[in-house]
Amino acid sequence: MRTLEKSFTISYYSNYINMNFMPRILSNQLKEKIGEEVELWGRAYSLRALSDELVFLNLQDRGGIIQVVFEGDDAKGLNIKVGSIVKIFGTVKEEKRAALGVEIQGKKVETLETPEDEMPFDISKKALKVDLSTLLDNRPLTIRHETVRSIFNVYDTVLGAYAEKMRELECKEIKTPKILGAASEGGANFFTLDYFDKKAFMAQSPQFYKQMCVGAFERVFEIGPAFRAERSFTTRHVNEYISLDAEFGFIESFEDIMDIHEEVLKHIFKKIEEKNQADLKLHNAELPSVPDKFPRIKLADMKKIIKERYGYDVPKETDIDPQGEVYACQYAKEEFGSDFIFLTHYPRPERPFYTMPAKDNPEETESFDLIFKGLEITTGSQRIHKYNDLVESMKDFGLDPKDFGFYLETFKYAMPAHGGWGMGSERIVYKLLNLGSIKEAILFPRDVKRPYP
Amino acid sequence: MRTLEKSFTISYYSNYINMNFMPRILSNQLKEKIGEEVELWGRAYSLRALSDELVFLNLQDRGGIIQVVFEGDDAKGLNIKVGSIVKIFGTVKEEKRAALGVEIQGKKVETLETPEDEMPFDISKKALKVDLSTLLDNRPLTIRHETVRSIFNVYDTVLGAYAEKMRELECKEIKTPKILGAASEGGANFFTLDYFDKKAFMAQSPQFYKQMCVGAFERVFEIGPAFRAERSFTTRHVNEYISLDAEFGFIESFEDIMDIHEEVLKHIFKKIEEKNQADLKLHNAELPSVPDKFPRIKLADMKKIIKERYGYDVPKETDIDPQGEVYACQYAKEEFGSDFIFLTHYPRPERPFYTMPAKDNPEETESFDLIFKGLEITTGSQRIHKYNDLVESMKDFGLDPKDFGFYLETFKYAMPAHGGWGMGSERIVYKLLNLGSIKEAILFPRDVKRPYP
Repeated sequence: MRTLEKSFTISYYSNYINMNFMPRILSNQLKEKIGEEVELWGRAYSLRALSDELVFLNLQDRGGIIQVVFEGDDAKGLNIKVGSIVKIFGTVKEEKRAALGVEIQGKKVETLETPEDEMPFDISKKALKVDLSTLLDNRPLTIRHETVRSIFNVYDTVLGAYAEKMRELECKEIKTPKILGAASEGGANFFTLDYFDKKAFMAQSPQFYKQMCVGAFERVFEIGPAFRAERSFTTRHVNEYISLDAEFGFIESFEDIMDIHEEVLKHIFKKIEEKNQADLKLHNAELPSVPDKFPRIKLADMKKIIKERYGYDVPKETDIDPQGEVYACQYAKEEFGSDFIFLTHYPRPERPFYTMPAKDNPEETESFDLIFKGLEITTGSQRIHKYNDLVESMKDFGLDPKDFGFYLETFKYAMPAHGGWGMGSERIVYKLLNLGSIKEAILFPRDVKRPYP
Repeated sequence: MRTLEKSFTISYYSNYINMNFMPRILSNQLKEKIGEEVELWGRAYSLRALSDELVFLNLQDRGGIIQVVFEGDDAKGLNIKVGSIVKIFGTVKEEKRAALGVEIQGKKVETLETPEDEMPFDISKKALKVDLSTLLDNRPLTIRHETVRSIFNVYDTVLGAYAEKMRELECKEIKTPKILGAASEGGANFFTLDYFDKKAFMAQSPQFYKQMCVGAFERVFEIGPAFRAERSFTTRHVNEYISLDAEFGFIESFEDIMDIHEEVLKHIFKKIEEKNQADLKLHNAELPSVPDKFPRIKLADMKKIIKERYGYDVPKETDIDPQGEVYACQYAKEEFGSDFIFLTHYPRPERPFYTMPAKDNPEETESFDLIFKGLEITTGSQRIHKYNDLVESMKDFGLDPKDFGFYLETFKYAMPAHGGWGMGSERIVYKLLNLGSIKEAILFPRDVKRPYP
């Protein structure tokens, strides 16, 4: 058998497969290199020339931003355009006032790529002062701003930590279809699709599928898009978002689901604490108070407390309104020092047909919402797992069991007691970083007026 | 501040948050428990009564399948229905002939849930002998079959290992929209959608978005659905699949992309080797030969070799056809002992407009496909990163740059040299396990005739 090197048709192998395509070094690796000559690659983020003999350049790479100082002859004749892709050669110097504790004494700049035009707005300032439309219309540019970029550093941590914890809990990761032949789960607010010669629908949630999977895998999780055709114009809704789903078999109660959910959130915020201190700082955001156990309060009791304590009547036509959620969190913070609170036992008509009725009161359900800093981020419950109960519940809700053929097949052939949750991934970041809208927490958000960029 | 326990509205906390909701134990944890009394929960997978004093039950839980033997009085009057959800009480016995090295001497069975009906087909046999339609039409049941379930154990490993390696390579995980305002990337084979008062399209790939993100994050990856409205009726195509995407900035050549891609695949197969030996065995599948370096051959050279060596003419109207891919892999195996081969330098008209033309021959591109066991699983390339070159390339392809506003904005303001890949996640599992169709590697696959279950 021939070795690869001897084959005339095999191309050469580049010999620098490593993390940084050496000799490059990243801005966040400089601390150990004080006094050394280094080469940095990145974007010329901002530029300040105090004279023709003193120029400050901020270089942005995937590690962060580092200041490069050019002095004397090294500064003369420098020709750097902000936004350019450059290689910087220089020496690492200790600089206690700098965020990274170091700066670069610049020697040489090599420009690799230059912008074709002036930027439509200045992204080199500390705060990117543009309105939401401008921010989103110009996403290819605005995500380059350090503060905007940092949002997605945090988001990356949320996604990774969620999957990591779910695997630790022995859940299988599943991927379920987003195109559905029927708009099964109630019917409203589905996007419709031309699917060859038929109509199809975009999935609002993996609910039915993850339950089916519990019958085989027992514990599953999914990270995937969910699509809702709601004409919302709020700061908390979008029409496409990433749902963090989970479903667990062999539970004894929906309390188990809340127990596990707490563990997952604690893990996510532990990882954010480890990885995203600099990102939090850019947003003046503090880590929330994540107690070992989150308060759990019946929704009906919570409403009474809100009325008594804050003099606010939650409107009758809703389970709880945004203002009520804010008060619930205020109460959790004041009484238990927690930025999280579970509201439990939602009324049966407010929850989907598959929600388990409460043991002690069939008008309520074994369900919960998790409220974080005044916003619902998770909805969960125990599900009805007995075939006949499920059929009855469908009828109670005015649904025809015939429309739920393959879903019901799951239960016809025995299912363990189970429950789970769906969590809005972007809402965590939106509230954590005190952003003005959930749309800021999404790279390319979708709303009623915005199917692009 | 009050402690949680003292609050009258706080419900009790279940005190058994742990991996298995003790006192339960899993089938794959029994080896250390020989001689001990245990409690197992799961599904009565199959049943064999040799007499009323000797009954064999296979119990399935998320750890696998364990045999439970009931003898004498313990067997008498046993009433277990196959498919039921049960608790089993018994003693762990060493049994060298058993796959897990142990079996259970059964004492008692507690039935939690019973099927409402006889199964439409027998899923307790070692091989599930049903045709593809039956297999997919009855997905809630067929995924419970141990061999079918094992496919998704492997798939779970693929997803987890991919994300793990990408993070190790310092890529940020991104989530980009699946609803698009314009069918930008050429136009054909998009599903169309009613998006409020407009038409919209389902994303075929995150290509444009991941490139835009390179401008900010430098290295990114995405795991997400891709939708293709092709009227295909093959064993290798579906209309919705999970694409494993990556994009890297600051590369020197598309060889870097292949270098990194090799590392990713080596990691995936290393993890499968660690975690999925039992699953592979159920499919009589062997781990592929994953050499340190995969052969890389120019497509044009490969075609010559196929002609000379196997007497097969790749049809002129295609870059390479499925039969050609099979021969390419046969060659890689015979010559280099590899189950993988990169075919490189695809002709320019066969690749999208954003593909970097080859340095030495502008009729070819700096592109590759990775072929695994006779099937293309990955497509990748270096991309054009200079604004003017990209505009020219659009024109060469008969496209109007005006239709690519926000994509072009990315390049107008400078981009580093970059490249990446898109890999079909399900294809890896399909070929690895020698399945009859890619649809078997998807929980709920979508094809022209199948928008459900």
